[in-house]
Amino acid sequence: MSSVQAATLVAPRQLEVRSYPYPAALEQGAVLLRMLASGICGTDKHTYRGETEQYVGTEYERSTPFPIIQGHENVGVVEAIGDGGGAIAFDGTPLQVGDRVVPAPNRACGRCRNCLRDFPYFLCSRLENYGNSLTCGEAPHLFGGWSEYLYLKPGTTVFRVPDSLPDDVAVLTEIFAVTHSIERAAKLQSPNGFKPGDAVVVIGVGALGLAHAIKASMMGAGKVIVVDTSASRLALAARLADATAVPAGDEAAAEVRELCGGDGADLVVNATGFPGTFAQATAMVRDAGTIVEVGAFVDMGEESFNPASICGRSLAVLGVGGEDLLCYEGTIALLDRHRGAIPFAEMVSHRFDVRDAPEAMALALDPDASAKVLITPGGAA
Amino acid sequence: MSSVQAATLVAPRQLEVRSYPYPAALEQGAVLLRMLASGICGTDKHTYRGETEQYVGTEYERSTPFPIIQGHENVGVVEAIGDGGGAIAFDGTPLQVGDRVVPAPNRACGRCRNCLRDFPYFLCSRLENYGNSLTCGEAPHLFGGWSEYLYLKPGTTVFRVPDSLPDDVAVLTEIFAVTHSIERAAKLQSPNGFKPGDAVVVIGVGALGLAHAIKASMMGAGKVIVVDTSASRLALAARLADATAVPAGDEAAAEVRELCGGDGADLVVNATGFPGTFAQATAMVRDAGTIVEVGAFVDMGEESFNPASICGRSLAVLGVGGEDLLCYEGTIALLDRHRGAIPFAEMVSHRFDVRDAPEAMALALDPDASAKVLITPGGAA
Amino acid sequence: MSSVQAATLVAPRQLEVRSYPYPAALEQGAVLLRMLASGICGTDKHTYRGETEQYVGTEYERSTPFPIIQGHENVGVVEAIGDGGGAIAFDGTPLQVGDRVVPAPNRACGRCRNCLRDFPYFLCSRLENYGNSLTCGEAPHLFGGWSEYLYLKPGTTVFRVPDSLPDDVAVLTEIFAVTHSIERAAKLQSPNGFKPGDAVVVIGVGALGLAHAIKASMMGAGKVIVVDTSASRLALAARLADATAVPAGDEAAAEVRELCGGDGADLVVNATGFPGTFAQATAMVRDAGTIVEVGAFVDMGEESFNPASICGRSLAVLGVGGEDLLCYEGTIALLDRHRGAIPFAEMVSHRFDVRDAPEAMALALDPDASAKVLITPGGAA
Amino acid sequence: MSSVQAATLVAPRQLEVRSYPYPAALEQGAVLLRMLASGICGTDKHTYRGETEQYVGTEYERSTPFPIIQGHENVGVVEAIGDGGGAIAFDGTPLQVGDRVVPAPNRACGRCRNCLRDFPYFLCSRLENYGNSLTCGEAPHLFGGWSEYLYLKPGTTVFRVPDSLPDDVAVLTEIFAVTHSIERAAKLQSPNGFKPGDAVVVIGVGALGLAHAIKASMMGAGKVIVVDTSASRLALAARLADATAVPAGDEAAAEVRELCGGDGADLVVNATGFPGTFAQATAMVRDAGTIVEVGAFVDMGEESFNPASICGRSLAVLGVGGEDLLCYEGTIALLDRHRGAIPFAEMVSHRFDVRDAPEAMALALDPDASAKVLITPGGAA
Repeated sequence: MSSVQAATLVAPRQLEVRSYPYPAALEQGAVLLRMLASGICGTDKHTYRGETEQYVGTEYERSTPFPIIQGHENVGVVEAIGDGGGAIAFDGTPLQVGDRVVPAPNRACGRCRNCLRDFPYFLCSRLENYGNSLTCGEAPHLFGGWSEYLYLKPGTTVFRVPDSLPDDVAVLTEIFAVTHSIERAAKLQSPNGFKPGDAVVVIGVGALGLAHAIKASMMGAGKVIVVDTSASRLALAARLADATAVPAGDEAAAEVRELCGGDGADLVVNATGFPGTFAQATAMVRDAGTIVEVGAFVDMGEESFNPASICGRSLAVLGVGGEDLLCYEGTIALLDRHRGAIPFAEMVSHRFDVRDAPEAMALALDPDASAKVLITPGGAA
Repeated sequence: MSSVQAATLVAPRQLEVRSYPYPAALEQGAVLLRMLASGICGTDKHTYRGETEQYVGTEYERSTPFPIIQGHENVGVVEAIGDGGGAIAFDGTPLQVGDRVVPAPNRACGRCRNCLRDFPYFLCSRLENYGNSLTCGEAPHLFGGWSEYLYLKPGTTVFRVPDSLPDDVAVLTEIFAVTHSIERAAKLQSPNGFKPGDAVVVIGVGALGLAHAIKASMMGAGKVIVVDTSASRLALAARLADATAVPAGDEAAAEVRELCGGDGADLVVNATGFPGTFAQATAMVRDAGTIVEVGAFVDMGEESFNPASICGRSLAVLGVGGEDLLCYEGTIALLDRHRGAIPFAEMVSHRFDVRDAPEAMALALDPDASAKVLITPGGAA
Repeated sequence: MSSVQAATLVAPRQLEVRSYPYPAALEQGAVLLRMLASGICGTDKHTYRGETEQYVGTEYERSTPFPIIQGHENVGVVEAIGDGGGAIAFDGTPLQVGDRVVPAPNRACGRCRNCLRDFPYFLCSRLENYGNSLTCGEAPHLFGGWSEYLYLKPGTTVFRVPDSLPDDVAVLTEIFAVTHSIERAAKLQSPNGFKPGDAVVVIGVGALGLAHAIKASMMGAGKVIVVDTSASRLALAARLADATAVPAGDEAAAEVRELCGGDGADLVVNATGFPGTFAQATAMVRDAGTIVEVGAFVDMGEESFNPASICGRSLAVLGVGGEDLLCYEGTIALLDRHRGAIPFAEMVSHRFDVRDAPEAMALALDPDASAKVLITPGGAA
Repeated sequence: MSSVQAATLVAPRQLEVRSYPYPAALEQGAVLLRMLASGICGTDKHTYRGETEQYVGTEYERSTPFPIIQGHENVGVVEAIGDGGGAIAFDGTPLQVGDRVVPAPNRACGRCRNCLRDFPYFLCSRLENYGNSLTCGEAPHLFGGWSEYLYLKPGTTVFRVPDSLPDDVAVLTEIFAVTHSIERAAKLQSPNGFKPGDAVVVIGVGALGLAHAIKASMMGAGKVIVVDTSASRLALAARLADATAVPAGDEAAAEVRELCGGDGADLVVNATGFPGTFAQATAMVRDAGTIVEVGAFVDMGEESFNPASICGRSLAVLGVGGEDLLCYEGTIALLDRHRGAIPFAEMVSHRFDVRDAPEAMALALDPDASAKVLITPGGAA
């Protein structure tokens, strides 16, 4: 093969399919993946719309470097490995050509103070992120998943995928890895900590919220309640997470409290990704309960809150800015264990070939028209 | 004795000394304390100023029932015990006349769902609070500590005080028990959890903030930084908590970050009790750090925040609405162990007899003129 | 009704059906339950065999007080309530005649130091336990569940059962509440803490071990492995917990390690109830993993261990001596949520009328012949 | 300088001073330290006596590779750095010649599965340990601290030491870093978790136990009790940790319980390093308390325990096999903060020049004759 097709975001709202040279040689430790599937994520929509100031205030603050090949929820097959060895899977064994893998979207330096302190790897001060922080303006170009091939720099962590897990489910690994937010809530001590039998509310059940609802169910929630403006999203979440659907609106908080025996949910996951719903989350959670804020890593403005509601009611609030590298193995194990009981692939509503990426994005931007949209060879065919 | 003098808040800003009958008989399990000392706390000032809507949004939402005898930070001597037994100290042994004790200010029902779930006892849905929720308009009247005698209803938890601990220090037990907020932060998982060697910032070092700074020091902070507008408060905190003082203001956050090696404190305790400082706390904490919101249990209005700062930076926020019953024994043990090294009594700036309570309150309202003000027999004499 | 039939253990191995007077009047706060089902538990077998020194070394150390009506895994219907009120369900609402409930088997005093410190309620220094610590030699006699009626003293905690949960499943509440051991393991911090996707081994899958295997599955285990000498137990556990069965024996540890990718399970639950398996548990767990010791609360002798294996490998060992009162609501919620997917009632192998309790016990003593045996009106009929 | 003097353990009990060539060139990322001080540790004594099977059962199981230069508790000055950069301190900044530093004694690969899962770094499956796992039979030889120079391979983590901290205290960093065991106990949920005000017992107050007693004090213990057979050790521990001394023996457990109000200590740290004291630890801890097993990483045989004591009493046992890399910064901060109040240097009883290492070891082997013995240029001079 002499050229590689990849969807390229030249500037906000300017998504084009371009050709790139097939990488002639790989650095030692680098890996070339032949892409099987790559998801369109909320971050991708932000970037597409020009909301490109991301992770503001962290040491890893980024501004999208155009042009860029997006795509960080990836699954692919190892096509080539740089000479000299050093490409190792998370399980400690050497990678082989032909291995089907999920690569971590972030590549941490391992040397900065945040890395040395075992912070979540996305807080590395020199983080690189496939699909988000690496421009395709520089060789070897292929730094995003909406492409026929993805180039993984040396030191990128990759995870093997068992044969039993279809591509359509494996590609959900990254988004499910973000749900370590509930794992963090589960580590909190009583009475804030999530525990088996607890009632969990998820506000906003796009793909990220939906993954949280399902994860809560798999972790032993006694009741899962999903809140959204979209009837189709609610229906999907109700089915996949065995959840009770509550339409968003003025009555939602009262309805949630009633479903929870009067005093609110033990854990509220706020996954809308936009300011304006924190007060609602507060109204839905019980005294001494926990609110998770997830998915709001793009600066979309402020909202107001009453410190007395946090303090007097002894609430805990956990911000979760990204997925945890340590969750990938567990996520893959869970997806594999529950694939019979939970039809994860129904989270995927559409599939497009990389050549049709602009059409895919147009569809993904309409929350009522789609759930998770994939870029995958051959698309829906 | 046939009459008891007690400071009585008849209505906001109307504090008078009134006489009450000495309780003739006590219910079974009830205890009468001869007061040794009672503190003036931030809550008392709120109530005095008419900010009487407290713990709004909890099941225990209270509006001050005037007239009221204030005073919930108490130490006294058991003067009388109701016939029939049942008055038991926290250590499981029966109380005796003459025992010097600190009573818990809150009396939980032990039967409501929040009590049964082992919530912090101040979240009991039928909570009673000496000095705050029980009017002195009804017999036996003496439900607050700014009085010669304090009447403890059956089922109030009381803690023995060792002889080695002076009244001036024992009276600080309650406020130090509120610092279980840092204990909660210490239970958080890495990297949010407080651990030995960490840098801790306390914003607002009135008595509550000062207690937090000292507690952080006793729990193994590697560095304690205190931020306040008052130079005298800063000086006191610097001395008692072996802390670095940073004047509040526009430069404070930058100065804190620099003191912390560039990336902010591991833990920020926001103890101002008023809205408007959350953004500052956010600017002072490192990525994946923790903010404790404490002391803001009176509704004083809203402030704004950016959810992207919580989420993208993976911060944890812990609200702490009151002290933990389980901390009293530990607090007493700590005060006793460190009384040689830390001159706790310097937290107390003034002492007034109950007959001079109005003067005491006037002084306490001026943050630059006083630290902890006590109501104690004979006052400064 | 003028007399009540109850199975009575007169002395070790002497189980007889006796008549007791129907309680004429109930104390205030007391409750009389018409029994629907009561399980035969491992403790009951110990007591039957005369292994009656239980919880040795705790403040609550007990020696069975013969004669006794056994039965502490109970579900029943409220038949009568003592005058004057005070019988309240855990959800905070008053009990009503006709309510179907699970009573907590332990009754803690709420006043001793262990109770005040929020220790697990079975560590109350004045604990009473239905079926274990209260002799039926004294009126009102009916202090165990293998009876037509069960007398609950004032202050016994009871939990409402939803209509959707059959008696056969509701009766399993107590044993599932013991599985808070895994909840404790889930609160441990990394790398000891149990987290979603982890591999869990349960050694000994009698009813208690089986409940642990199922609970691990409901809490998000990525792999569940069960080890036992009994092929029928293994088959049942494999089906109900979606587990991999490994026959006990010299090869078991190696087989477990291989199933776990070479380095052992993240969590090993040792539920055999007898000394002699700790070394095996150690051999099955990975470095920095966790071993739960559960069900061994009867002194059956010592075994040896190598402190270097605990220390050098940084293992955590958690002893769990009984169920947690705080787990009942969550357990009922989980049993109700999963009753469609998991046929819990298959844990019950036999049902006997209280008149046939001796026959029931004979069967229960043979691990290969039975799983959970119930005493229930009408028995298998 | 053309030759370097280093104490060399040629075989068990054969300690000689030998000459090695001064390293001509350093690999990229390597660092040469001029030694300021190196401690003699319990491990070193084990190895000297030929107890060389260490960390048995872990993936990192080691047998001492003779000849070896011992010494893993080190502080030194950067004398030279390999060309090409890459020698970075833990704080993320490049090392400079002249920096005074404490190097981590262990060097983890960062690539094996245990490293990737953020296990404590001493569980790396390819661990290298200065002074323990690297023979001086191969160039560049200088892999232990009982030498004039220490060669640090690329990727060894090093920590800067503030000017205010004397060498005699800085050299204690490693042993204090092992006390993260108490930090782990502090992360446990109530009632097992260590919290401020708790009573802590340390059995065996050699240097490691003494460091634990001091750390408990710095972390807010309400009472520290030390148990040992040596009166001089007890006296030192009582002074440095503000502890109550209890002579080891048959009465010790009863005395500890009495000191703790009758029911035992909240936390018992068993730091004897030898089998045979676990039953004593069990007898000293309260119900639902925690036992830390630390320092027993050399296989010295088995001892017996009763699983019913762990299980029925709901004890937690935490094994801690080594220090935690994440604790070094905090340890240095604590040593620096408390150096005025706690005379850490009194832990050091003797100082010997490297040329007198055999004499130093002879003294260190007698527990009554010495506390921490240092190898330091010029020795006691």
